[in-house]
Amino acid sequence: MGSRARISQLLLVSRRHSASITTTTSTTSTSTTTSTSTSAPTPAPATTPRQLATHPSSKPRVVILGSGWGGYNLSRKLSATHFHTTLISPRSYFVFTPLLTDTAGGSLDFSHIVEPVRDRHASVDFLQAAARAVDFAAKTVLCEATVVKSGVTESPRRTATPPRSWEEGETFAVPYDKLVIAVGTVSRTFGTPGVRENAFFFKDVGDARRVRRRVRECFELAVLPTTAPEMRRWLLHFAIVGAGPTGTELAAALRDFISADLMALYPSLKGIPRLSLYDVAPTVLSMFDESLSKYAMDTMRQEGIEIKVSHHVEGLRWGAPGEAAPAEMDPKRCLTLTTTEEGEVGVGMCVWATGNAMNPFVRDALADVPTFPTASALRKDGSGPPSEELVHRSAWRVKKAPKVGALSVDEQLRVQLENEHGDTVVLQDVFALGDNAMPEKGAPPATAQATFQEAKWLATRLNRGDSQQTAPFSFRNMGTLAYIGNANALLQIPHEGGEHHKYLPEGLKGRMAWLVWNSAYLTMSISWRNKLRVAFRWMLNHLFGRDVSRY
Amino acid sequence: MGSRARISQLLLVSRRHSASITTTTSTTSTSTTTSTSTSAPTPAPATTPRQLATHPSSKPRVVILGSGWGGYNLSRKLSATHFHTTLISPRSYFVFTPLLTDTAGGSLDFSHIVEPVRDRHASVDFLQAAARAVDFAAKTVLCEATVVKSGVTESPRRTATPPRSWEEGETFAVPYDKLVIAVGTVSRTFGTPGVRENAFFFKDVGDARRVRRRVRECFELAVLPTTAPEMRRWLLHFAIVGAGPTGTELAAALRDFISADLMALYPSLKGIPRLSLYDVAPTVLSMFDESLSKYAMDTMRQEGIEIKVSHHVEGLRWGAPGEAAPAEMDPKRCLTLTTTEEGEVGVGMCVWATGNAMNPFVRDALADVPTFPTASALRKDGSGPPSEELVHRSAWRVKKAPKVGALSVDEQLRVQLENEHGDTVVLQDVFALGDNAMPEKGAPPATAQATFQEAKWLATRLNRGDSQQTAPFSFRNMGTLAYIGNANALLQIPHEGGEHHKYLPEGLKGRMAWLVWNSAYLTMSISWRNKLRVAFRWMLNHLFGRDVSRY
Repeated sequence: MGSRARISQLLLVSRRHSASITTTTSTTSTSTTTSTSTSAPTPAPATTPRQLATHPSSKPRVVILGSGWGGYNLSRKLSATHFHTTLISPRSYFVFTPLLTDTAGGSLDFSHIVEPVRDRHASVDFLQAAARAVDFAAKTVLCEATVVKSGVTESPRRTATPPRSWEEGETFAVPYDKLVIAVGTVSRTFGTPGVRENAFFFKDVGDARRVRRRVRECFELAVLPTTAPEMRRWLLHFAIVGAGPTGTELAAALRDFISADLMALYPSLKGIPRLSLYDVAPTVLSMFDESLSKYAMDTMRQEGIEIKVSHHVEGLRWGAPGEAAPAEMDPKRCLTLTTTEEGEVGVGMCVWATGNAMNPFVRDALADVPTFPTASALRKDGSGPPSEELVHRSAWRVKKAPKVGALSVDEQLRVQLENEHGDTVVLQDVFALGDNAMPEKGAPPATAQATFQEAKWLATRLNRGDSQQTAPFSFRNMGTLAYIGNANALLQIPHEGGEHHKYLPEGLKGRMAWLVWNSAYLTMSISWRNKLRVAFRWMLNHLFGRDVSRY
Repeated sequence: MGSRARISQLLLVSRRHSASITTTTSTTSTSTTTSTSTSAPTPAPATTPRQLATHPSSKPRVVILGSGWGGYNLSRKLSATHFHTTLISPRSYFVFTPLLTDTAGGSLDFSHIVEPVRDRHASVDFLQAAARAVDFAAKTVLCEATVVKSGVTESPRRTATPPRSWEEGETFAVPYDKLVIAVGTVSRTFGTPGVRENAFFFKDVGDARRVRRRVRECFELAVLPTTAPEMRRWLLHFAIVGAGPTGTELAAALRDFISADLMALYPSLKGIPRLSLYDVAPTVLSMFDESLSKYAMDTMRQEGIEIKVSHHVEGLRWGAPGEAAPAEMDPKRCLTLTTTEEGEVGVGMCVWATGNAMNPFVRDALADVPTFPTASALRKDGSGPPSEELVHRSAWRVKKAPKVGALSVDEQLRVQLENEHGDTVVLQDVFALGDNAMPEKGAPPATAQATFQEAKWLATRLNRGDSQQTAPFSFRNMGTLAYIGNANALLQIPHEGGEHHKYLPEGLKGRMAWLVWNSAYLTMSISWRNKLRVAFRWMLNHLFGRDVSRY
């Protein structure tokens, strides 16, 4: 996606578009409709964003990019009286990610954890498209329609086929008065060979489905009469790389699913399945206190999960260990995971869950700023627009956090521009939140909890109106929970004292913490419909076991 | 799949296999394991069906091909005391097809109507494979493993890419004492140009998912600012070809979903979506009495469904009406459906639901019988094995019903062989049921109800043992139900009088029939888990509306 050259080209198109939008909007909506209602079978040219123009609104238009924790929750909290809100995302739904591991393990259906952006009770427009570029001066976002993309997540099941021509969508420009960038991040692979092509990631419903399908697939392959015993062991070895909350909870969920459900269905495979959790760090769940971290490792080892900390992954390829690489992809057989410590290991599946990298839009498209956005820029101290001299001192670019590459935002979550002299200006109408943003002061952790708080804060800030002062955003740690399998969980909540003083309630280890975890997640499950569904399903699972179908 | 030449080749392989199986089975299971437990990373050769050989059993081995109404229900009713049952199917689950339309419309999740073949309470072995050939003399089925096939149903979403090399599975032979063929049928397209490539079919969960995705996709495409008004109308025109129960109920379910749920989410598209039900016959639901059929047409027309009976479909292609064909597939745009009566019509989707054709296994592989199965064959009158003279009179082939091509079975559902002189013999250990079989006398309708009764009858017959006489199978019509939208349904039950005297209870039209329909289906929903789920979900739908997410 998007080389710099392509982005510049798109930006030019974008400017052309925005001009035509202005024109179109000033005509009556009737004439607009007529002008595009040609009888020719060709679609309307991309330069006529008709539908947007027919919704002229006196209310400021807030455009939100992304339907994750930040974008979705902000869209639900923005005042419909004050704003006309449009959410743009390649994904038409929000995913309640804390329960994503449960869908991979068959405890929940995908529909249980998904909330559609379109909702009859929410006054939010939606466009299924990916943002490709932003023109801060013209105040437009250039988008590419992604309705027919076969998958919106980054890890298609099989990457061998080249992208098909119809997957490229038409582009169109959307004007904004206020822009909120909440597009999230992609998985970070550290350039490890073969990972981008052959690993599964774990960020979206599509990923959970792939994991679910592959685990069942490996079990079915293992019982085929044509499968050799060695291949059977490799196929039933599941590797998860990254022992943060996602990797650890996925290992725990798969462990429960395999030991409680699958082993009853495949008695002939008893003792063969293995689950390995790799991390380069010497511990799992490093955001927890050392004692909890150790407790997690001990418990998970007892449950049969192989904890392979201090391991360095060197590559992932299709084919069995010892075979001459590179083998062609053949999902009937295993993959080989290579680590410095163990050499080659056969695995049926490798899930990669090791932290975040910026996606091409944030990395490449939000970079150089060819035209300085005079109307939007404020001096860093908020004392008004920057001086002529400052504006023309040198070229401007979007300010990013060092190393991470996230958008560097001020304490009001506003995006900033900088020049090579270290001058910074604030864009008063462009905000960023979630994992693609990094507040200069007091950056919160990259968690759903933090992003949710940012969305709530920004909604309050915008609903109150710009003129009013709002206290800067600050993250309030509500505690951290992690499920570690076999009805065990960890809970860490901050003590009344200092921010860094951690408190571990004795009685909340294990089963108790699991109970708290369940009820906490139920309460946070956005809609009542899904709250009821999840509760009912947990009850059924208790009675009948998890879902084992692969379809 | 399978030309005759390939099948003959496979049969040769099959015979080689079965020889090796016999050898393997006669050794101890320990030595078998050792002999294939090589440390080389290559998989075991296909000629060593290890896993099967390690389950030597004194019980007769019943092999069932297919996991539909016939195969699945038979597997659940066969006595585990008397038989060792192995079910072989490319699909690892059974689908409760009467509710398939509900999943397409978002009223139910796929998991609600799916029952896995593997179940801890059922003593049934399962192999995820497709039968490719049967050697009646050696009593083996040659199978191809299909675990990693990207889809098991006949209508992959996009057929442009050629099948990938890894999709071809390894083959292996499975010995049987009794064989039951219940592989069902594929959709019949009458050779209509473009239908096989561009239409959706409606037989499996994958099909329902494709329909569900495409409908939502068309709505999202329609609201894109780059979509011209004409293309918008075409995209939102959904065509269903075939006004039998499947097509009619799908039209009804989509109509409900669009009018009750989608129109609330896309208010700007009011009045644009259309739903057309095509059939070559002059009426819908022709298996019902004329008065009911007319009631259905009137009601559905009132609901806004366009009933296009006496229409002849000539072709289906991608691209807009009037465009020079053939256009490449582009799901961002519409298809064109051509009928003799209307000419070219733009549609966003076309679902093809017009009856059954035999699949390649029944059509091509179950044809010539190179080696006469002396041990299995019985004279047609059941009076013992056929004479030497009869056996060698001329070449034998599997007996098929004329035109349809289904396996012609006797009143005990046994498969038969015939020669060119019109002689017929019965195979006493090969049975066929469901849509791929046609009893010579009193052929039942091609419905789930009939197949279910056949499976029940055959289970009783086999559980009692061959020696005992069982009354021949005969179909008992329990009545027919069809949902026609907006909480209306038709119910037709046979009267106490003659078989052809139909009874229409006045009070059971409309909403009452719908209630009966719902409770009948709930009761038939195989497992208690899914019964509860469906009931709970219907309650939630009533409160919150249907699922509208597309993921």
